[in-house]
Amino acid sequence: MLPYELIIKKRDGHTHTRQEIDFLVKGFTLGRIEEAQMASWLMAAFIQGLDHEETRYLTEAMVDSGSQLDLSRLMGATVDKHSTGGVGDKTTLVAGPLAAAVGVKIPKLSGRALGHTGGTLDKLATIPGFRTSLFHDELITQIEEIGLAVGAQTADIAPADKKLYALRDRTATVESIPFITASILSKKVAGGAKNILIDVKAGSGAFMPDLVRAKQLKKSLIETGAELGLNVKCLVTDMNQPLGMAVGNSLEIAEAIETLEGKGPADLTELSLRLAAEMVLLGRVSFKMEDARALVESALAQRQGLVVLEKMIRAQGGDDGVIKDRRRLPAAAHILPIVAEHDGYLAINDCRAIGLAAAVLSGHQGGGFSFDAGAGVLMRARHGEAVEAGAPLLELHFTEDERRVEAELLTRKGIAVVKEKPEVWPLVYEDED
Amino acid sequence: MLPYELIIKKRDGHTHTRQEIDFLVKGFTLGRIEEAQMASWLMAAFIQGLDHEETRYLTEAMVDSGSQLDLSRLMGATVDKHSTGGVGDKTTLVAGPLAAAVGVKIPKLSGRALGHTGGTLDKLATIPGFRTSLFHDELITQIEEIGLAVGAQTADIAPADKKLYALRDRTATVESIPFITASILSKKVAGGAKNILIDVKAGSGAFMPDLVRAKQLKKSLIETGAELGLNVKCLVTDMNQPLGMAVGNSLEIAEAIETLEGKGPADLTELSLRLAAEMVLLGRVSFKMEDARALVESALAQRQGLVVLEKMIRAQGGDDGVIKDRRRLPAAAHILPIVAEHDGYLAINDCRAIGLAAAVLSGHQGGGFSFDAGAGVLMRARHGEAVEAGAPLLELHFTEDERRVEAELLTRKGIAVVKEKPEVWPLVYEDED
Repeated sequence: MLPYELIIKKRDGHTHTRQEIDFLVKGFTLGRIEEAQMASWLMAAFIQGLDHEETRYLTEAMVDSGSQLDLSRLMGATVDKHSTGGVGDKTTLVAGPLAAAVGVKIPKLSGRALGHTGGTLDKLATIPGFRTSLFHDELITQIEEIGLAVGAQTADIAPADKKLYALRDRTATVESIPFITASILSKKVAGGAKNILIDVKAGSGAFMPDLVRAKQLKKSLIETGAELGLNVKCLVTDMNQPLGMAVGNSLEIAEAIETLEGKGPADLTELSLRLAAEMVLLGRVSFKMEDARALVESALAQRQGLVVLEKMIRAQGGDDGVIKDRRRLPAAAHILPIVAEHDGYLAINDCRAIGLAAAVLSGHQGGGFSFDAGAGVLMRARHGEAVEAGAPLLELHFTEDERRVEAELLTRKGIAVVKEKPEVWPLVYEDED
Repeated sequence: MLPYELIIKKRDGHTHTRQEIDFLVKGFTLGRIEEAQMASWLMAAFIQGLDHEETRYLTEAMVDSGSQLDLSRLMGATVDKHSTGGVGDKTTLVAGPLAAAVGVKIPKLSGRALGHTGGTLDKLATIPGFRTSLFHDELITQIEEIGLAVGAQTADIAPADKKLYALRDRTATVESIPFITASILSKKVAGGAKNILIDVKAGSGAFMPDLVRAKQLKKSLIETGAELGLNVKCLVTDMNQPLGMAVGNSLEIAEAIETLEGKGPADLTELSLRLAAEMVLLGRVSFKMEDARALVESALAQRQGLVVLEKMIRAQGGDDGVIKDRRRLPAAAHILPIVAEHDGYLAINDCRAIGLAAAVLSGHQGGGFSFDAGAGVLMRARHGEAVEAGAPLLELHFTEDERRVEAELLTRKGIAVVKEKPEVWPLVYEDED
């Protein structure tokens, strides 16, 4: 088999066999196929597409490139939860504890911040002492005892995906539905997941802004997942504005705690309840949505999720005092409010810009090297909300003024105060089918 | 401008500006754009295509990557001739001298053997003493005096094309009509050509076997050439069987000499006359095909082309004694005839295999390192010719037996003796339009 012949095959719109996909993934991962040839194949596959079988082969080849986590010691159905990435998306830290509180077992391997989106690991790491690297035994024991563990993906989970992603990221072949499907599912399969809830984000703050494409991704994830023997549930949810008000690492931890106290923003609370209920169904704790919903609502009302989060923080070495005293979390030195210049309605035109602003302030993106765990953007109004001249629209939490300047430009690009009330988006794009 | 954004643009089927094409070609040539990104763009452009304007920009950017030959000292119209590459194609060495003999000025920069096809330079280099590297002054003077010079393309002629071709060759992006158009025309423009005759080969021995695609290439060459201010004439000619009987370096020199003596194979003689007549028209020595044809036929009958070839060989330091005594050319040590096993008709099924066999025998392809200038394949029958059992179909001229084994397998794959007379191909695929 020659890489050259396989490039021709895909270039001309033909379908690969399992052996061919294996050959490409293995060859590239082991360095036998050079980057230029793989880049050419990636673009051919991006344009000509991969069918469901090919997507499954790609997923399996990427799983086989590393080791698989064995979760068989855990009794009952475990549930994994994944988001395609958003701005202010801290639902894992709210829905996870709520679902765990009612008996769902959640082994959650999480990732770092990417581009304009945050990473659950970066957020948790702002809690003093919190460890994200867990030994396998530790992970299993913690899930048995608390129901929830959030740890870092180890390097041996689908290493082919990591190497391929780095190349896709340089060669403009990221936004391919088959590639995204294989990338998400391979990491989940390698992480030992069988039941997976995937939150596919759509809107200006999502990696795949277009709603039609987001729905195609949902379909691909469910179908390919089924072929892999996985039980995949997908929701397409809105990412045209930050989820909740806080965007930034410790700011989001604080908001997650508030939400588990029952005092969180309406959108974050509602989506977290919905996701937690879906996890309850996937974990077969309930079999009807009404029951599942009632369980997680009751857990929220009784602050049971907060107890789970507190236990998890303690189990992973973190300072669980942050639950009662948010001042123990890192905070930025300065706060600059951005205010409305005239009466009108807040319109969020570019959610990505807000995410980027938070990334710049915290040091994930842009100049400087120091990580500012307390920095970020705190929204003070929602999209479509009436605002008076002089009222704060959002706050920039920052320590370095240079970063503030860049972030301010970004947020001013992302929002506006408009005369007419703008259209608002639904929280969840429910199925028409 | 970012390479990434340009890859996206072409990936999504949009059209590049001149600045964008310049940026890509220059960036890649100077090593600022990495191979993986260029490979991804090449595949995107291969599948989505380049329009005439983009093809022209690509051509011009490749011309600008090196230096241009200045032929302005030559009076009158100069004519360049190019073949897209074939098996046994020595028409440059027959049509060139015939056209020069009647007054056409032909500065011909030629290439080396590529894959299964021969290179005019490799053939000429088998003449003892012949120099293919010519100084600019020398080239001009020789053309003024003799009308014809065949030299090697220097490294500073369209270096971007060389670098891009090497990448295309590894990434399965060679057979793109816009890329081929830009590659051919950039070298011609950089070589100072204004009037160009291009012989586009179609058939199993051509780089672009499909006739429909060959005709598309012709159209693209003419249209892009016109936009560049070039006068391009294209013929689509048959390459389903070797042109003439000889395939191999010194074997082809001998056949070219024979043809200029008026004793060459009918197909080679006819195509050479046709090409020479087209060159006479392009060089504005005649203005009507009948006149041009009469001129070159008369030159052939009076052996004037032979005189030009002899002078050219002498001018470029070669042993002009080869004209009268072909034994001065290198010859292989052994000749193995491949004979018909039964009565029937010779059918050439795969002309490429015959070309490859000659390349293997001479050492252009396959094992070993020594160049065997006298090796090659000599056809003893034409496609569609009736052959009796035991009659020779072709001869393998070889020195190393190991190469003979491989070449024999290839030729046996390429030819067959069949019961029914096979369909024959026209020599030139004339325009229907």
